[in-house]
Amino acid sequence: MPVYNPPLRDMQFVMHEVLKVGDEYKAMPRHAEVDAETVNAILEEGGKFASEVAFPLNISGDEEGCTLNRETHEVTPPKGFKEAYAKYVEGGWPALSCDPDYGGQGLPITVNQCIYEMLNSANQAWTMYPGLSHGAYEALHEHGTDAQKKMYLPKLVSGEWTGTMCLTEAHCGTDLGLLRTKAEPQADGTYKLTGNKIFISAGEHDMAQNIVHLVLARLPDAPQGSKGISLFAVPKFNVQADGSLGSRNPIYCGGLEHKMGIHGNATAQIVLDGAVGTLVGQPNKGLPAMFVMMNAARLGVGNQSLGLTEVAFQNALAYAKDRIQMRSLSGVKAKDKPADPIIVHPDVRKMLLTAKAYAEGGRALNLYCGLLIDRELHHPDEKVRKDSAELVALLTPIVKAFLTDNGHIATNACMQVFGGHGYIREWGMEQFVRDNRINMIYEGTNTIQSLDLLGRKVLGNNGATLKKFGKLVAQLVEEEGVNEKMAEFINPVAYLGDQMTKFTTELGFKGFQDPDEVGAAAVDYLRVAGHLVFGYFWARMAQVALREIAAGNTDPFYQAKLQTARFYFAKLFPETAMLMRTARGGARVLMDTDEALA
Amino acid sequence: MPVYNPPLRDMQFVMHEVLKVGDEYKAMPRHAEVDAETVNAILEEGGKFASEVAFPLNISGDEEGCTLNRETHEVTPPKGFKEAYAKYVEGGWPALSCDPDYGGQGLPITVNQCIYEMLNSANQAWTMYPGLSHGAYEALHEHGTDAQKKMYLPKLVSGEWTGTMCLTEAHCGTDLGLLRTKAEPQADGTYKLTGNKIFISAGEHDMAQNIVHLVLARLPDAPQGSKGISLFAVPKFNVQADGSLGSRNPIYCGGLEHKMGIHGNATAQIVLDGAVGTLVGQPNKGLPAMFVMMNAARLGVGNQSLGLTEVAFQNALAYAKDRIQMRSLSGVKAKDKPADPIIVHPDVRKMLLTAKAYAEGGRALNLYCGLLIDRELHHPDEKVRKDSAELVALLTPIVKAFLTDNGHIATNACMQVFGGHGYIREWGMEQFVRDNRINMIYEGTNTIQSLDLLGRKVLGNNGATLKKFGKLVAQLVEEEGVNEKMAEFINPVAYLGDQMTKFTTELGFKGFQDPDEVGAAAVDYLRVAGHLVFGYFWARMAQVALREIAAGNTDPFYQAKLQTARFYFAKLFPETAMLMRTARGGARVLMDTDEALA
Repeated sequence: MPVYNPPLRDMQFVMHEVLKVGDEYKAMPRHAEVDAETVNAILEEGGKFASEVAFPLNISGDEEGCTLNRETHEVTPPKGFKEAYAKYVEGGWPALSCDPDYGGQGLPITVNQCIYEMLNSANQAWTMYPGLSHGAYEALHEHGTDAQKKMYLPKLVSGEWTGTMCLTEAHCGTDLGLLRTKAEPQADGTYKLTGNKIFISAGEHDMAQNIVHLVLARLPDAPQGSKGISLFAVPKFNVQADGSLGSRNPIYCGGLEHKMGIHGNATAQIVLDGAVGTLVGQPNKGLPAMFVMMNAARLGVGNQSLGLTEVAFQNALAYAKDRIQMRSLSGVKAKDKPADPIIVHPDVRKMLLTAKAYAEGGRALNLYCGLLIDRELHHPDEKVRKDSAELVALLTPIVKAFLTDNGHIATNACMQVFGGHGYIREWGMEQFVRDNRINMIYEGTNTIQSLDLLGRKVLGNNGATLKKFGKLVAQLVEEEGVNEKMAEFINPVAYLGDQMTKFTTELGFKGFQDPDEVGAAAVDYLRVAGHLVFGYFWARMAQVALREIAAGNTDPFYQAKLQTARFYFAKLFPETAMLMRTARGGARVLMDTDEALA
Repeated sequence: MPVYNPPLRDMQFVMHEVLKVGDEYKAMPRHAEVDAETVNAILEEGGKFASEVAFPLNISGDEEGCTLNRETHEVTPPKGFKEAYAKYVEGGWPALSCDPDYGGQGLPITVNQCIYEMLNSANQAWTMYPGLSHGAYEALHEHGTDAQKKMYLPKLVSGEWTGTMCLTEAHCGTDLGLLRTKAEPQADGTYKLTGNKIFISAGEHDMAQNIVHLVLARLPDAPQGSKGISLFAVPKFNVQADGSLGSRNPIYCGGLEHKMGIHGNATAQIVLDGAVGTLVGQPNKGLPAMFVMMNAARLGVGNQSLGLTEVAFQNALAYAKDRIQMRSLSGVKAKDKPADPIIVHPDVRKMLLTAKAYAEGGRALNLYCGLLIDRELHHPDEKVRKDSAELVALLTPIVKAFLTDNGHIATNACMQVFGGHGYIREWGMEQFVRDNRINMIYEGTNTIQSLDLLGRKVLGNNGATLKKFGKLVAQLVEEEGVNEKMAEFINPVAYLGDQMTKFTTELGFKGFQDPDEVGAAAVDYLRVAGHLVFGYFWARMAQVALREIAAGNTDPFYQAKLQTARFYFAKLFPETAMLMRTARGGARVLMDTDEALA
């Protein structure tokens, strides 16, 4: 059976030693009182919930899956999921980073990100139930009417009700402009919605009293395409004036998808058969409103893969130390045993360190983004808020695509460490691979993320936002440029930064002449950008480790951090050279081929 | 539901136009009569069997899996598997490349490889039943006593009986020297075997009257480690002097593994409880005897991934032409539709072409290896036989590891083309990914393959065999060096060949000082070698295409072949630069890390 130990030490390292969140929080009136002790106590409690409540249900949830009663349209999640959710609500976890005006605890997003990383390690399928709810909370908090906020937010914050986002239809996922679900205005100001949605995560279950579906649909007079889409709040049970639950609204689960993984999550086909809803935000402005939720969700998906990368690493490491097989190439290591533990083999270490470097780099980036959102929401200086918002917008597609692709690489590498046993379900490793696989797809495929990054976020403003990140790199170079010990970490990042500037300009020119050149280079470009960002954070983490070691700190944690940084720059970072070369391979070799690809 | 169309045209291209097997066969007395017409007729029939009989059982077999009756220890494969196997036997397919002395049809291995590729595309889990049998046939044909050959071979050739290989035990897979199954000699010259095996593919089923298990075990006086292992033939039902089936031998299925994929294959835990067996080959020489089977199996595993790469490509291509979503970046393409088919998007094409280039390159290499084995077995010139044997030994770990890793990349890319639908079982794409995943593990993990290549096959003889492959490259360069049209294909291969020579020498020196340097570089090295070999075959395929086009042939097949070659060299081949760089990153960044990886 797999193990999971909350990586509290490493989270605290990133939070307190790298990002120095304490100093950051002090600048924000809302969070000024949040000190390290508070943060650590919450992480510890969250870690307990993740490892003791959510994690034991991970394999059983995968095996059992969800069950739809076709007569009642009710869905039963796997055994234990409902009870675990009740404990989660009881513990006040849904409220953690929510607005105190609606019962929230108003804690920083950064802290919430740590809790979610641990929940994702423990049980991605289960975590999606509260995860989707939180997204619905954010969309309603930002775009809901006062009446909607009053009706829904306290219940979402307490966790008594959950939420979903209903976007996809069978014929459209990426291209929401094609969607067909209709919303007919009623005399009382509500709307009746009719249509069919698919792939609705946490779409139906018995874990909460009510479910608030946020549904994209078209008004009768809506323009064609993506500018004619509106957003509606459609509850499972209609809510009466006094807040109590009324009649069952005809929005129900017509079927459950049979999926490669995340079996414990009810991925529902949702039928709307004249379901009553209310408009969220402006008519025909549903897509921008939904994007509030989508952006949070995209960061959340990156966090899911971060969680899976960490838990896969922990298990592969434990196995590699325990499993004996063959002797070390450089001579017997475990003389008392008939073979050496497989961690003596260089390629086993390479697989382990790949996962470790991606987990720790991902954690730094993920929490940095959390901090940017905390600044965006609560920093008193408007310029800081604006800059932070821009930077997190730039980094969001990188978090989504780079972390999930890395999760794919890492979970597969960790599964490979187990040899044949990795293919066997009971060990839990192949589930991490299967669960991670959706993260590369949903909330916008990784190709879509790359087009968002290169087309919109970078070339869309002539690289202005990218330059802001470049300034952070330049600042680090300035700080540490003369420090010989930092050269091995700083030089590759500085060099790649320079290359990327040229590379970006080059793609801008090519894309101007032929937009397909952007499409052909985007995926490679995003991965290069991902390494630039990871390289920056690995250099910063090495900086902290070097300083601690220089100051006489003998905690082996810092030596390990340095070694992992060295591994990262020697074995993973060089991918960037290839990526720029294949991107420069251009669009013609793709587009000149006959469409038949005969 | 997925589709599968046997790629007869491309197989015929490789067989007749690239490898010119007709000329090759003429030089071999056994195959002198095998002309193109015969080959094509067999491929067509084999394709029909694969697409019409095996393929329709692929998804249902995955859904249903195998069932063990714990009282009788009998295993029932998924519905239809038994009937399909009966048809396979009736069609004489098991006998195709077997020795006519035992009822075989004596056809070339090359032809058999084509049939297996199609069966693997259609249904890898099903194909493993006859596949393992064929391996048992080969081991007994090479190492069996006359009595064993007489008793088992005709039944394996006809397909009435099937075979397995029983190597792995719970505590040892890679390191077979640790195995514990015991064989006690009996007065009548037989042995009684006791022990527990795991991961036995096609280990128990009701598709054949009898199953011949080839089992590795230890004699009482055997030396420790891998030099104390012997090979035994242990039938499910004891065979009487007249060839009829006698009593049930106590070798039975104690449990079925729950796996990520290949659910239709019975992966059995096999219990030997004093089962009667006979010795195959010499005492304590079981491993070398088993390696006959293992080498064939390794090529077979590469062929499995080739099959999955091809079928995944076909389905992703069909979907990409059919699914409409968004408009082309370079302007509307399908004016009559609300969106363009997704094949207009550059990255979708990149994913498709990746699978296509890996499928077609893999097919060329796979069939070339088949041809080398045909030469090794039947060429009248001893030197040709010896050279061919050496070359196929060199290429075997490349076929196993490179084709299966490419299969991982390709099946995942093709699944990604489907977006969210790729994650849904009914579309079949995620099954290709899951089924392929075992190919990177079994028959020696891909890390083991890389150590076999670099440590044993390359450095073990100071690169002598590698130089033989280098001569083929040099010959092509000589032939086409002045042909301007070939420069784009020849130059990168010639350049990489030069680099590899230096790279190999360098690794030899480093490995001499520290063997872990070999272990650290081996996986990267194998992938570079894989691209050298693929580059060579892509250049040869481009050569044929250019000649046909120059001769006025307007079949679009040749233009597509050229375009795919260009794609391969622009987008996939450049990986080699990164791989040499990461390999040069060395062993220290791996081995200096504390074992705790704290």
